[in-house]
Amino acid sequence: MQSKIALEEHWESPDFYATGSHDFVNADYFADVQRRLQEVDQRVEDMDRNGIGVSILSLTQPGIEGVTDTGKAVDLARRMNDQAAELVARHPERLRAFAAVPLQDPEKAADELERAVRELGFVGALVNGYSNVGDETTAQYLDEPQVDPFWARVQQLGVPVYLHPRIPLPDQQRIYRGYEGLLGSAWGFGQETATHALRLILSGLLDRYPDVNIVLGHLGEGLPFTLPRVEHRLRHQRPETHGAHEKPPTEYLRNNFYLTTSGVFRTQALLNTMLEVGTDRLLFSVDYPYESMDELAPWFDECPISETDRAKLGRTNSEKLFGITQPAA
Amino acid sequence: MQSKIALEEHWESPDFYATGSHDFVNADYFADVQRRLQEVDQRVEDMDRNGIGVSILSLTQPGIEGVTDTGKAVDLARRMNDQAAELVARHPERLRAFAAVPLQDPEKAADELERAVRELGFVGALVNGYSNVGDETTAQYLDEPQVDPFWARVQQLGVPVYLHPRIPLPDQQRIYRGYEGLLGSAWGFGQETATHALRLILSGLLDRYPDVNIVLGHLGEGLPFTLPRVEHRLRHQRPETHGAHEKPPTEYLRNNFYLTTSGVFRTQALLNTMLEVGTDRLLFSVDYPYESMDELAPWFDECPISETDRAKLGRTNSEKLFGITQPAA
Amino acid sequence: MQSKIALEEHWESPDFYATGSHDFVNADYFADVQRRLQEVDQRVEDMDRNGIGVSILSLTQPGIEGVTDTGKAVDLARRMNDQAAELVARHPERLRAFAAVPLQDPEKAADELERAVRELGFVGALVNGYSNVGDETTAQYLDEPQVDPFWARVQQLGVPVYLHPRIPLPDQQRIYRGYEGLLGSAWGFGQETATHALRLILSGLLDRYPDVNIVLGHLGEGLPFTLPRVEHRLRHQRPETHGAHEKPPTEYLRNNFYLTTSGVFRTQALLNTMLEVGTDRLLFSVDYPYESMDELAPWFDECPISETDRAKLGRTNSEKLFGITQPAA
Amino acid sequence: MQSKIALEEHWESPDFYATGSHDFVNADYFADVQRRLQEVDQRVEDMDRNGIGVSILSLTQPGIEGVTDTGKAVDLARRMNDQAAELVARHPERLRAFAAVPLQDPEKAADELERAVRELGFVGALVNGYSNVGDETTAQYLDEPQVDPFWARVQQLGVPVYLHPRIPLPDQQRIYRGYEGLLGSAWGFGQETATHALRLILSGLLDRYPDVNIVLGHLGEGLPFTLPRVEHRLRHQRPETHGAHEKPPTEYLRNNFYLTTSGVFRTQALLNTMLEVGTDRLLFSVDYPYESMDELAPWFDECPISETDRAKLGRTNSEKLFGITQPAA
Repeated sequence: MQSKIALEEHWESPDFYATGSHDFVNADYFADVQRRLQEVDQRVEDMDRNGIGVSILSLTQPGIEGVTDTGKAVDLARRMNDQAAELVARHPERLRAFAAVPLQDPEKAADELERAVRELGFVGALVNGYSNVGDETTAQYLDEPQVDPFWARVQQLGVPVYLHPRIPLPDQQRIYRGYEGLLGSAWGFGQETATHALRLILSGLLDRYPDVNIVLGHLGEGLPFTLPRVEHRLRHQRPETHGAHEKPPTEYLRNNFYLTTSGVFRTQALLNTMLEVGTDRLLFSVDYPYESMDELAPWFDECPISETDRAKLGRTNSEKLFGITQPAA
Repeated sequence: MQSKIALEEHWESPDFYATGSHDFVNADYFADVQRRLQEVDQRVEDMDRNGIGVSILSLTQPGIEGVTDTGKAVDLARRMNDQAAELVARHPERLRAFAAVPLQDPEKAADELERAVRELGFVGALVNGYSNVGDETTAQYLDEPQVDPFWARVQQLGVPVYLHPRIPLPDQQRIYRGYEGLLGSAWGFGQETATHALRLILSGLLDRYPDVNIVLGHLGEGLPFTLPRVEHRLRHQRPETHGAHEKPPTEYLRNNFYLTTSGVFRTQALLNTMLEVGTDRLLFSVDYPYESMDELAPWFDECPISETDRAKLGRTNSEKLFGITQPAA
Repeated sequence: MQSKIALEEHWESPDFYATGSHDFVNADYFADVQRRLQEVDQRVEDMDRNGIGVSILSLTQPGIEGVTDTGKAVDLARRMNDQAAELVARHPERLRAFAAVPLQDPEKAADELERAVRELGFVGALVNGYSNVGDETTAQYLDEPQVDPFWARVQQLGVPVYLHPRIPLPDQQRIYRGYEGLLGSAWGFGQETATHALRLILSGLLDRYPDVNIVLGHLGEGLPFTLPRVEHRLRHQRPETHGAHEKPPTEYLRNNFYLTTSGVFRTQALLNTMLEVGTDRLLFSVDYPYESMDELAPWFDECPISETDRAKLGRTNSEKLFGITQPAA
Repeated sequence: MQSKIALEEHWESPDFYATGSHDFVNADYFADVQRRLQEVDQRVEDMDRNGIGVSILSLTQPGIEGVTDTGKAVDLARRMNDQAAELVARHPERLRAFAAVPLQDPEKAADELERAVRELGFVGALVNGYSNVGDETTAQYLDEPQVDPFWARVQQLGVPVYLHPRIPLPDQQRIYRGYEGLLGSAWGFGQETATHALRLILSGLLDRYPDVNIVLGHLGEGLPFTLPRVEHRLRHQRPETHGAHEKPPTEYLRNNFYLTTSGVFRTQALLNTMLEVGTDRLLFSVDYPYESMDELAPWFDECPISETDRAKLGRTNSEKLFGITQPAA
C-alpha cells in the first residue's frame, strides 16, 4: 500500500540526549536506534521502500517530560521544536511534527503548543507520560488539575495529543526486580501508559473537554482487551474512588481516542481492537526507529482486513485527523 | 448448556476473614459477596439454574498468602482445607476443591498440597499471587528459588495450580492515588497477576518442570493481547535481564497454561484469546460470588463460538484436566 | 438500540398476489406471513418494540418480475407503487418505500423509477432477481444489454437498487429433486441471487455506471466468503468467459454494493463480512415478515461489534444512503 | 511449518484422460496442470520446499464418476488404483492415496474401496460429485438409496470419503450463459458441491451411518457461512421436503465432516469456519496442481491462528484421521 501515514516516529537532537536510561538494552541495537533517531534522510528512503508517504516526528521519550527543572524544560522544548521544524523542512512533503511541550509549566506548555501549531505548522503534541517536576521521583499525570490549562488550549487549537509510553517511576519497579528487561521492554512501558490513559478516562477531563482527541500507540496499550472488564467491575467500587467521569469508560475510548498499530504487528490483537472501537479511529504507525518499517509495513499491507479498512487505517483516517493532503493513490 | 464446570469459585470460612481490605467497594455488594462466600447451598441452586454441573472451590484472596506468620499460615491452610472438604461433602457430585497452600514455607506448602490431593481428593491448588513472609510489605513471587520444592511436588502430583489475582503491594500503588477504585477493581489485580505470570514464564521454572500446568483467570489477564509484543521486544533486551527461559514466552502460554473466562464475558477478548492459544486449554469459569453466574453462564451459552468449542471450554477440557466424570449431556 | 433502519421489509397488496409458489412452506407460517405483508400498523408496533425507527417497504417476491406480460407488468408496477405510497402515508415518519419496476420493458422501468422517486418520494428500487419476459421459463438478468437504459437512469437519479432473491428457474431445479424445501428456503434463493450478483460484477456494468449502488441482503448472499476464491480462480479462465469487468471482482463488492443483515443473525458470518468489506457499507435489515423483528433486532443490539459500528450499521449508514433524518438517539 | 499433510492432491494417468472439459481455461495454465498431474517427483520437491511431509493422491475430476459405462468404470477404477499404488511406492514416506470408486455400481465401489484399503494401503476414497450412470446427462447423488451399500462398507472400514467438486450438469448451466468461466471456476463447482453436501446432510444417511466421516475441500464450500441460515429457514419448510435427518444440519457439519483449506487461502473465511466448526476437524490441503503449494503453504504457515491450531490443522488432525506417523517436528 502506498501513501501510508505513520505517527509514532521519533527523533532526537545531537544537542539533547532525550532517550533516558537504556541499561537493559542490547548495545548494538541501541547504537543503531540512536543513529537513526538523529537523521531523516535514510528514514525517508525506508519510507519510500515501505509505501509510507508521511511520517510525523516526535521527540523521543522521556524527552522534555524528564527534565526536572521547569525553566530548562520550557527553553529546551522550544529549541527542540525549532530543530524539528528544520528536519521537516528537509523533506516538506514527507515529514510533519508533533510539538514537545514543557508540562512542568502547563500554561507555558499550552503556549508552546500554540506556537508550534501556528508558527511551525505542527499537527499536535506528543507527551511522554508523566512529567518530573522538581526531581526524578516526582510524577505529574495529565489528569491532575494543574494541567487543565494545557487541555483547554488543546481543545481550542483542535489538535490531537499523542500519549506516548514512559518507563514506570523508580519506586514502582519492585515487581520487576530480576526482570529489568521486562520493565524496560514493552511491558513496563505499556502498563504505565495504560494506567495513565485510564486516569484520563476516569477523571472527567474528557467531559470538560469533549472535543479533545488523545492518541494511544500499541493498539491502545491493551485497553481494547482489558477496559470492558474494568468498566464492568467499577460498578461495584465506591463512586468517589474512580474519578468524575460521566459516561462509561469504553465510550471515551471509542470517541475521544485514536489508537495506532505502532510496534504491534499482531493481527489477532488488531481484530480485537477493531471489534471494540471500529476502524474510523484506528491508525497505522511504526514506532521508528525502535521498530523497523520493514517489519511493520509488510504486515500491515497484508493483514486480513478489508481493503476499505486498510485505506482508512493506513491513510485516510490520518489525512482527515491531521489535515494532510497526499497525491491520489 | 448443561454440565459446565467452573473453577474460580471462592469460599470463605466464618473462622478466618480471608478477603482482605475492601475499603473501596460498595458496602451492599460486599455484604452480599461475603454471605455467598460462606455457604454452598444457594450456590448449588445458582449452579442448577445456570447449567453448571461442578464448581471447584478455593479460599478467597488473599487468603493464606496474606498471613505474615509462617507457622500460623501452615496451621490455617490445613484447617481451611479440612473445612473446604466438609463443604464439598455436602454436595459431593457438584463441588470439588483446590487446596490452600502456605507458601511462606514452600516445603510445607508442598506437603499440604499432597495431603489435600491424596487424602481429601482435592484437584490442585489455587495461589493468590505473592505471599507475605514476615510482614505485609514483603512479597515472595512464585518464581523465586526458594519456592522450587513446591513446584517439584506439583509436577510430581500432576495437578494444576491456579494463579489467582491479588492486589499490588502497598508501596506499588502510587499511580492509583485518587483512583483507588481502579486499583481495587480488575485493573490493579490484573496488572499484578499478569506481571507475576510473566515472571513465571521468563524464569525458566517451566523448563525445569515442563509438565506443570498453571491456570490463569480472566482470559489470561490480558496476556493473549499483550504477550506477543513483549516477546517481540525482549529480543532487544540483554538476556540476563529477562530470566532463564529457553523457549519463546508465547510457547509457555500455549503449552503450560490453561486460561479461564472467569469474570470476563466479552466475546471480542475471547476471540483474541482463541486465536492466540487455541481452545484445548480454555476453560469456562465464573469467579463467583464476585461475579454472577446469571451473567456469565448465559453469555457463555450464547457466545458465537462453535458448539464443538462450547463443549470443550464448558465441560470436556475441565473433565480431562481434573479427572471429573459427569453424566452424559 | 433505538432508531434502527431496516430495508428488506416487504408488503403485498390484496389486489395482487405477489408471493408466488409456497408449496413447500408450512401453511401456518405462510398464513401469518401473508397477513403481515398486507398491513402496516402491527408492523409499526413491532418496530417500536424493537427499536426500529424506519422500515423501507418493498413489494414481496417475485412481484412484478414474475408478470410475464409486459404491458400488465408496467401497469401493475405503477399501481403497486401508488398503493405503497398510501401505506407510507399512514406512518410517514416510520415508513419509506422502494419502487417496484417493470423490467420487462427497461425504459418503462426507468420511467417508473423516476416517477416513484420524484413524485412519490421513494428511496430507490428493489428488484426480485431475473424477470420473466413472455413466459415463466424465461429469465432476463440485470446485466443483459437491453437493461442498460434502466441502469443509466439509476445512476442519474442517484438511488440504490436492492437485488432481492428469487427462486431458481424451473428447469434449474434438478439437483433439488427430493429436497424441494431446500430449494424454497434460503439455499436455492441464495445461490440464484449470488450468481446473479456475480453476473453484475463481472459484466462491466459497474464500470459503465460506476456510481451505481446495489444492495444485497443476507450478508451478501455468502459472497464475502466465496468471492475471494472466485476472483483467485478466474485468473486461469479465458478472459472472454468472465465478462468485461475492468477491476478485480472484490473491488466492486466493496465499492458498489451495500450488504444487509436481513435474515442472517449469525455473528460468525457478520465478522467474516466485516473483514471483507468493512463497516461503511453494511446495513441492518430484517426481511420482515419472513423473519421476525423479535429475533433479528435483539441479536443485532447485542452482537459483539463495537458500539461505533453498531451505530453505523443500525442507523447512520442508512441515513446517509437514503437521506433519512431521524431524531437524535 | 514442517510435516504438513495435504489431502486434496490430484494425479492423472497417461492411460486415462480424467480431467474432462477445460474449454474455458487458459491453455498454458492447463498444460502445466496436466504435466504436473502425471508425475510425482517434482511434486515431492515442491513438498520439500513448502514443508509438506505427506500428500494424499486422488484421481482428478471427474475421473471415474464421468465414465458412463458401468463395466468400464469398474475396470478403470481398479486399474487407476493400481497405478496410484505404484506412484505411492516411488515415495512411500511422502505419498498416500485415496481410492477411486466406481459408484455406477455401488456394491462394486464398496468392494474396490475395501480392496484398495486392505491390499493397497489406501486411506479412504475421494468421490468427484455425482456419477453419470448410462449417459452424461444423468446424475446419481451420494444420498440416493442405491448408494447405501457403499456407505455401509465405508462405515465398516472406518475410512473417510472426500467429496470433491464436479461441474454442474449441462442442463443446469443456464444462469452461467455468457459467463462460462464462472461456471468452470470455483463458483459452479462450489455451488454444485455444497448442494450435494447438503443432500447428504439432510438425507438421514448420517443418522444411519453415524460414524461416517466426509471431507469437504475449500473450507466446506462456503457452508460454514451459509448453513446456519439454511438451518434457520428449514424450520418453516414442510418436513417431507427436506430429508429424513434427525438432528440440526449444523450438527452434522461439526460432527461428520472434516473441512480442508484446499484452494482457499483467505484468513477471513478460515476464521468464520473456525468459529462454526472448531479446529479439531479442520485440515490443511492444497488442491495441487490446480493450486500452487508455493501460494497455499506460506499463507498457512503465517496466518493468524494459534500455533496450537496450526499444528492441528497442518499435521496432527490428519495424522490421527489417517493413521499416519511422521518423524517428530
